[in-house]
Amino acid sequence: MEMFVSRPAVHPVEAPPLADAAENPLGVRMKDVQGMPGTPGGLALRLVQFAFAVAALGVMTSTSDFPSVTAFCSLVAAAILQSLWSISLAFLDVYALLVRRCLRNRRALCWFTIGDGITATLTFASACASAGITVLISNDLNLCSENHCTSFETAAAMAFIGWFAVSPSFLLNLWSLACR
Amino acid sequence: MEMFVSRPAVHPVEAPPLADAAENPLGVRMKDVQGMPGTPGGLALRLVQFAFAVAALGVMTSTSDFPSVTAFCSLVAAAILQSLWSISLAFLDVYALLVRRCLRNRRALCWFTIGDGITATLTFASACASAGITVLISNDLNLCSENHCTSFETAAAMAFIGWFAVSPSFLLNLWSLACR
Repeated sequence: MEMFVSRPAVHPVEAPPLADAAENPLGVRMKDVQGMPGTPGGLALRLVQFAFAVAALGVMTSTSDFPSVTAFCSLVAAAILQSLWSISLAFLDVYALLVRRCLRNRRALCWFTIGDGITATLTFASACASAGITVLISNDLNLCSENHCTSFETAAAMAFIGWFAVSPSFLLNLWSLACR
Repeated sequence: MEMFVSRPAVHPVEAPPLADAAENPLGVRMKDVQGMPGTPGGLALRLVQFAFAVAALGVMTSTSDFPSVTAFCSLVAAAILQSLWSISLAFLDVYALLVRRCLRNRRALCWFTIGDGITATLTFASACASAGITVLISNDLNLCSENHCTSFETAAAMAFIGWFAVSPSFLLNLWSLACR
């Protein structure tokens, strides 16, 4: 009987579920967001990132004179880094999907966020530098006849699209890191 | 007696308070972070952003031939946008500090995050493009004798430092938006 009386005293502890009920749908909603590590959407994002990084790399290296411009070399380096990072995380996503493991523990999320932030910044920076030089060559100096303007433009565009695909990964990882 | 038996079934519902207790100090900790809107640290960040955007603008416009290069024009445009945005939010921070109002409601945070994201991206993009062209002129083509290499480099560096000052604002806003 004493234990029954003591139950109301436990009530303050039981009260939180109300706040928790308001919080739970958010938690559930966040868990379902496609694009996070370990979801099919996240895997698709990684594959898109990898595809466009490889495309930028291929188009840029197909031109013979890219090593003469530092920015184009940096685009090649950033595209290599981006493709390696994206394909590694794609394999990790495939593994997580196959064994149904949740990749969203705090430490993993932290590493994913840092890696995404670095690769996104590098890809964007090199894409901007390449685009700036391409615009300089084509619009400001009108030297397209003696340069591979189309290839340079295509490579920069591919790198930009790759960056567009990395940004959601980065923002979602940061968001779910903050949500914990 | 039946109720005692049924209690373990209720346990999963009672478990959350533990997670909630672990979450509460995080909420308290986030409120104190300097650099968020309405804190002295946030105001300082805004003033640093404004100062470096104005410095980049001043150094770039002090050269006579910047309009001939699209990337340098974009740097000027981005620096103007950045300085206007930063000084507006600096005034808002001063107001919030004077009347001791918390600026961290959801809608305001959302606008601050979007604005910071856009200005940070534009500043970074134009700084990268300018840096790419400056490196092209000075290292790849060795044309520094007939160009204002030092000014271009200084302006790009100022824009980069401005971007470094915007990033924490953006990340903190996004973080506290996700924390709510």
